[in-house]
Amino acid sequence: MIHVDLNSDVGESYGNYLYGNDEENMHYLTSVNIACGLHGGDPIVMRHTVELAHEKGLAIGAHPGLPDLQGFGRRKIEVAPEEARDFVLYQIGALSAFLKTQGAKLTHVALHGALSVMAKHDEALARGILKGIKEYDPELIFPGMPGLVSYEVARDLGLQVASIVPIDLDFQKDGASIIERKKRGRDPKEVARKALKLVTTGKLETIDGIDKKLKADILLVHGDGPNATDILKELKEVLKNAEVKVEPFPNFV
Amino acid sequence: MIHVDLNSDVGESYGNYLYGNDEENMHYLTSVNIACGLHGGDPIVMRHTVELAHEKGLAIGAHPGLPDLQGFGRRKIEVAPEEARDFVLYQIGALSAFLKTQGAKLTHVALHGALSVMAKHDEALARGILKGIKEYDPELIFPGMPGLVSYEVARDLGLQVASIVPIDLDFQKDGASIIERKKRGRDPKEVARKALKLVTTGKLETIDGIDKKLKADILLVHGDGPNATDILKELKEVLKNAEVKVEPFPNFV
Amino acid sequence: MIHVDLNSDVGESYGNYLYGNDEENMHYLTSVNIACGLHGGDPIVMRHTVELAHEKGLAIGAHPGLPDLQGFGRRKIEVAPEEARDFVLYQIGALSAFLKTQGAKLTHVALHGALSVMAKHDEALARGILKGIKEYDPELIFPGMPGLVSYEVARDLGLQVASIVPIDLDFQKDGASIIERKKRGRDPKEVARKALKLVTTGKLETIDGIDKKLKADILLVHGDGPNATDILKELKEVLKNAEVKVEPFPNFV
Amino acid sequence: MIHVDLNSDVGESYGNYLYGNDEENMHYLTSVNIACGLHGGDPIVMRHTVELAHEKGLAIGAHPGLPDLQGFGRRKIEVAPEEARDFVLYQIGALSAFLKTQGAKLTHVALHGALSVMAKHDEALARGILKGIKEYDPELIFPGMPGLVSYEVARDLGLQVASIVPIDLDFQKDGASIIERKKRGRDPKEVARKALKLVTTGKLETIDGIDKKLKADILLVHGDGPNATDILKELKEVLKNAEVKVEPFPNFV
Repeated sequence: MIHVDLNSDVGESYGNYLYGNDEENMHYLTSVNIACGLHGGDPIVMRHTVELAHEKGLAIGAHPGLPDLQGFGRRKIEVAPEEARDFVLYQIGALSAFLKTQGAKLTHVALHGALSVMAKHDEALARGILKGIKEYDPELIFPGMPGLVSYEVARDLGLQVASIVPIDLDFQKDGASIIERKKRGRDPKEVARKALKLVTTGKLETIDGIDKKLKADILLVHGDGPNATDILKELKEVLKNAEVKVEPFPNFV
Repeated sequence: MIHVDLNSDVGESYGNYLYGNDEENMHYLTSVNIACGLHGGDPIVMRHTVELAHEKGLAIGAHPGLPDLQGFGRRKIEVAPEEARDFVLYQIGALSAFLKTQGAKLTHVALHGALSVMAKHDEALARGILKGIKEYDPELIFPGMPGLVSYEVARDLGLQVASIVPIDLDFQKDGASIIERKKRGRDPKEVARKALKLVTTGKLETIDGIDKKLKADILLVHGDGPNATDILKELKEVLKNAEVKVEPFPNFV
Repeated sequence: MIHVDLNSDVGESYGNYLYGNDEENMHYLTSVNIACGLHGGDPIVMRHTVELAHEKGLAIGAHPGLPDLQGFGRRKIEVAPEEARDFVLYQIGALSAFLKTQGAKLTHVALHGALSVMAKHDEALARGILKGIKEYDPELIFPGMPGLVSYEVARDLGLQVASIVPIDLDFQKDGASIIERKKRGRDPKEVARKALKLVTTGKLETIDGIDKKLKADILLVHGDGPNATDILKELKEVLKNAEVKVEPFPNFV
Repeated sequence: MIHVDLNSDVGESYGNYLYGNDEENMHYLTSVNIACGLHGGDPIVMRHTVELAHEKGLAIGAHPGLPDLQGFGRRKIEVAPEEARDFVLYQIGALSAFLKTQGAKLTHVALHGALSVMAKHDEALARGILKGIKEYDPELIFPGMPGLVSYEVARDLGLQVASIVPIDLDFQKDGASIIERKKRGRDPKEVARKALKLVTTGKLETIDGIDKKLKADILLVHGDGPNATDILKELKEVLKNAEVKVEPFPNFV
């Protein structure tokens, strides 16, 4: 039996600013990464998002970012590994408060934006952050991209990892995804076709025309795309029809 | 045997901005309330402050405030009880992450600034916040002033309370303390004399010339006063000489 | 000839967070109030918004708020009149930089959210803010509601005032508008009918069934409503058909 | 006659957080760079600082930084030249409001922290920022280090430049200054000796034992050093005794 998880970053609204379509998208998701207030999210949004996710039985992870609301955590900021670790711990702890009061469990930590990008290439930074995560809770799972620094450091530290693929993006033959924020509104059928191929054959299509071998545990869909809900709906249906079991990844990794 | 605790708000530095003299003051303190990043403190300061306090065996509490760094949490902000609860949970959780990674235990939650002042008079607000604290951890102790709304609500909810007296301030006959931020540099001997009288006789001197009956578990000294360290040093010596046991309040309340 | 201005608060997006539909709405507006970074807006949004408004020949005003992005400037914060004045001056100056580099002129200052509400009732606060505005530029116009404290103080200080009516809200017989943020999607025809009556007869319909006499210079439409563009479009057409001259209010007040 | 200016960054306090000893230092300074609220400073601090500086007849400049209070503007943040320009314009405008209401004049713009460091090496960034400054006011002077990118770009754009030397730091033979934030408490006599030599002979001593030729218009002393006031006092006396005219640099550049 093949298993896969459908995942999005959620809870990125802030005060009066709404972001994404969390409530609807959660009907199709099996896990979420919840923003923790430094790049997006605020205490009220966080509690509400935890409630929605917990009620639906989704695996709940923290989605810590750099302390930069204006830049939505997408601008690189020069930080020492120890500082990055402390930013991450702060955010994991803050989110955990809302899980604790609701009897929910934190299953994973997925880095956000520039922090994630930086940790994919900077070993000292990745190690600082991931050691902090392990000290906080050695059972936490780290979703990442096999081969990239942060993923390999997590494995090296003995953390459970999971392979995550942002399935609504294009990929290069080295596996790097191409983020074109302007390009919106992917064709759900096309995304679903690529996803099914990846999940059932372990082959990720690239824009170079070459398939890359990859085992994907988690398919990430960007919740801020204009038709994210349509993509998720299509994905779930296509996967289910193919008898792929779509469920929270902590069940099977 | 008489017990009393010496307590200060600490960890209120922020980035490049230093505040108070935490490291020295902690030689004399037996418990601390650590700022959690919304009115003061940042993740790096928080981790460092937890380290210092834990190393010295102090009782560690969270010191959540309103989300207002510019106003240092001292400006009243109109918030609903549920929002205030979420702000407090966020901060308790964030601080707890640094305690967890260091094997330390959170013993109490002391509200900061305007949030504390508002909760002393607004029952709905106090109840919202304190129910949140109880849901997070029913063992947490709430230091407050007997007779004030937040203290009585905490007791009513079944939370353990402790009586805290800001001993370096002046008091009115109704027990209200007078905050004159400009008046700095209290006479340590005078503060110690008042403290010893309070602790050994249960009588708090007021500026109205009347003593107010009060059992004090915790003596709070404002760490941002210019001679806070001198006051703490004198207090500790005078209390010890009088065979008062100065120890973390969770040991005896 | 009857004149009236169509106005909205604009430029309230922040970083990655989009807010309102400024670009489209500006086709129908004749003046705008641009957020200045403390409750919404950021330097990049501000420059862009000034560009759009200047290009279309709209009257450009500053829309300063309380320093509270999380609360979108809608939470009351306890501030002294001198502090509020400094917050307002800071914001007017910041916006003016983008006007200056583009050869545009600041015509007015419209207070935002809780700052506006507070100044409508607190004379000391209103006076502090309005004296600051006058010191900055005595030619600036203050849009307000006749009878309310801030409007009368502005007049008393010798500032030019303009009467502004949030025409997409309901009103009570005392002229107070009822803000129901949840109630969205007003009927454009109904808003336009009320507006035309107000502009041509000087009578504002209230939910109490009584008309209130009021001369309106400016009709404000909330740009964050779901059908704000439709309302503005309808308003402009109905007013033009009735031979009301819709133009920037600094032309005629 | 030899002229030189004594300069510091000031107004970097924030809310309850005090920073530096501005009021005393201003007795010795002839120009200041005032923080504008994004890395330090807030509207209340800014107004107060402008008052102090204007009253003493100092040349007043803006000291814009990156939007990063937590990092005090000292962390590099990835920003596009246009964004950096908008951050700078925002800050210049905000400060200018306090100058305008007090009848004071903005004479210069000195970049702060990481923004300054980045602009010293990145031409596109420097050009974006400096074009913005010129569009705002072509009379503004840009203090910089001859040879570095931002200084040369300013000159190329036709902006008036001034040569600024952080005289309380050590220098390498290429003119780069060595920032050791931990090394505090420079010997005032030694600083004054180096300064006098620089001003009278055009030779900057370096730690490599080689003198570097340099004409200094402005001597910068870091106001946050523990003995900044002593250094400034000594500097002023030594320079005056040597008949160097210590005056605001806009008088002579």
